Amino acid sequence: MPSPQPSAIVFDVFGSVVDWRGSLITELTEFGHRRGIDANWAGLVDAWRAAYQPSMQRVRSGEIPWTRLDDLHRASLDRLVTEFRISGLTEDDLRHINRGWHRLKPWPDSVAGLARLKQRFIIGPLSNGNVSLLTNMAKHAGLPWDVVFGSDLFGHYKPDPETYLGVARLLDLRPDQVMLAAAHNGDLAAARRCGLLTAFFPRPAEYGPHQVRDFKADAEWDVIARDIEDLAAQLGA
Amino acid sequence: MPSPQPSAIVFDVFGSVVDWRGSLITELTEFGHRRGIDANWAGLVDAWRAAYQPSMQRVRSGEIPWTRLDDLHRASLDRLVTEFRISGLTEDDLRHINRGWHRLKPWPDSVAGLARLKQRFIIGPLSNGNVSLLTNMAKHAGLPWDVVFGSDLFGHYKPDPETYLGVARLLDLRPDQVMLAAAHNGDLAAARRCGLLTAFFPRPAEYGPHQVRDFKADAEWDVIARDIEDLAAQLGA
Repeated sequence: MPSPQPSAIVFDVFGSVVDWRGSLITELTEFGHRRGIDANWAGLVDAWRAAYQPSMQRVRSGEIPWTRLDDLHRASLDRLVTEFRISGLTEDDLRHINRGWHRLKPWPDSVAGLARLKQRFIIGPLSNGNVSLLTNMAKHAGLPWDVVFGSDLFGHYKPDPETYLGVARLLDLRPDQVMLAAAHNGDLAAARRCGLLTAFFPRPAEYGPHQVRDFKADAEWDVIARDIEDLAAQLGA
Repeated sequence: MPSPQPSAIVFDVFGSVVDWRGSLITELTEFGHRRGIDANWAGLVDAWRAAYQPSMQRVRSGEIPWTRLDDLHRASLDRLVTEFRISGLTEDDLRHINRGWHRLKPWPDSVAGLARLKQRFIIGPLSNGNVSLLTNMAKHAGLPWDVVFGSDLFGHYKPDPETYLGVARLLDLRPDQVMLAAAHNGDLAAARRCGLLTAFFPRPAEYGPHQVRDFKADAEWDVIARDIEDLAAQLGA
């Protein structure tokens, strides 16, 4: 089967391009040591991520108006700091911790794979993160995006179709000229329903010991790769 | 006076970063030779650009609904091809010519200057072009943007304040943390009214023999530079 040739490839980011769990646990553990604040930081990070989908669902369902991911993250953090009985954090600390999502570290293959793909395709994130989060992350992690698609451009969170179709509209491409690349089968299924091409690569360590899904492709995606470098190789980049 | 230190620098593009007039005249002249179509191509290009502000003004004033610059360009081109009595163009030709705005060439200092600024600041276009035009142009010309702000993100054309303030909102910065860099005094005046920092550099050849303004800074902009490399030098990048 010849490889599909999209004009643009957009990437899921949290978990697919960057290691949110490892990055946040490392950063918060160091922060705690430095500040003498003892806490179950790994537990906090896992609980924070567990709050991610429910917090966006309140927006998707219309229960609350459009709210940027930075602000959803902050509301969840404020609640969890109390639940985890973490004391001694100032407002500046909470802002700094919340901005940890802007400082996530890439998986080892991400930067090299993206640099190869950029030679041949338009590349960008298509993430539930907001534009500022994604732009700051790219500067920090060296992600060589051509263009940045944050959920705040669409006023919708994935898997709402407005996100996938919004990318095609803004790039003036047909949906089948755009590929979503992600480590999450559910995200790819939603993109395929909108007519996008799809590429899967697994990130089996994303959730650490708590990972229960996405160890492998659940469907015949257009490309199934080992990682982003392998995706580049399969697409001839 | 110490140089201002913005977090992000956004650039006017047509005329400031790329040479629309020289690029289009060269491309169309070559196209005409290749296809044996004789025409006053330089006149067409000048007339096309002269139609630019009036076409956007119809959107700004509410006379017509939001229309992307690609589509305004096309409507003007269709009218001008008749006025200039150019015959023999197919629909594919007209599409190709209209996409010439996606293939404009940078001024000699643009890519090197932007690459230096990118090391220290978030950089992006803030242009009346649409996202697809700006993204394709960046790929073609090697413009190393971090993020792309096209007018279609805001549904407004400069100098409407929604454009300048929209950049600050999407980057989650105060207006005075964002600098507009441009070769056009009017664009800078509008940005300053919105609270942005401002940087001017002249492009005295932008309009060829027809240039009547913007040979120099008309006000005390925060930075006044010779070109984009000098802007980088003045900002310590």
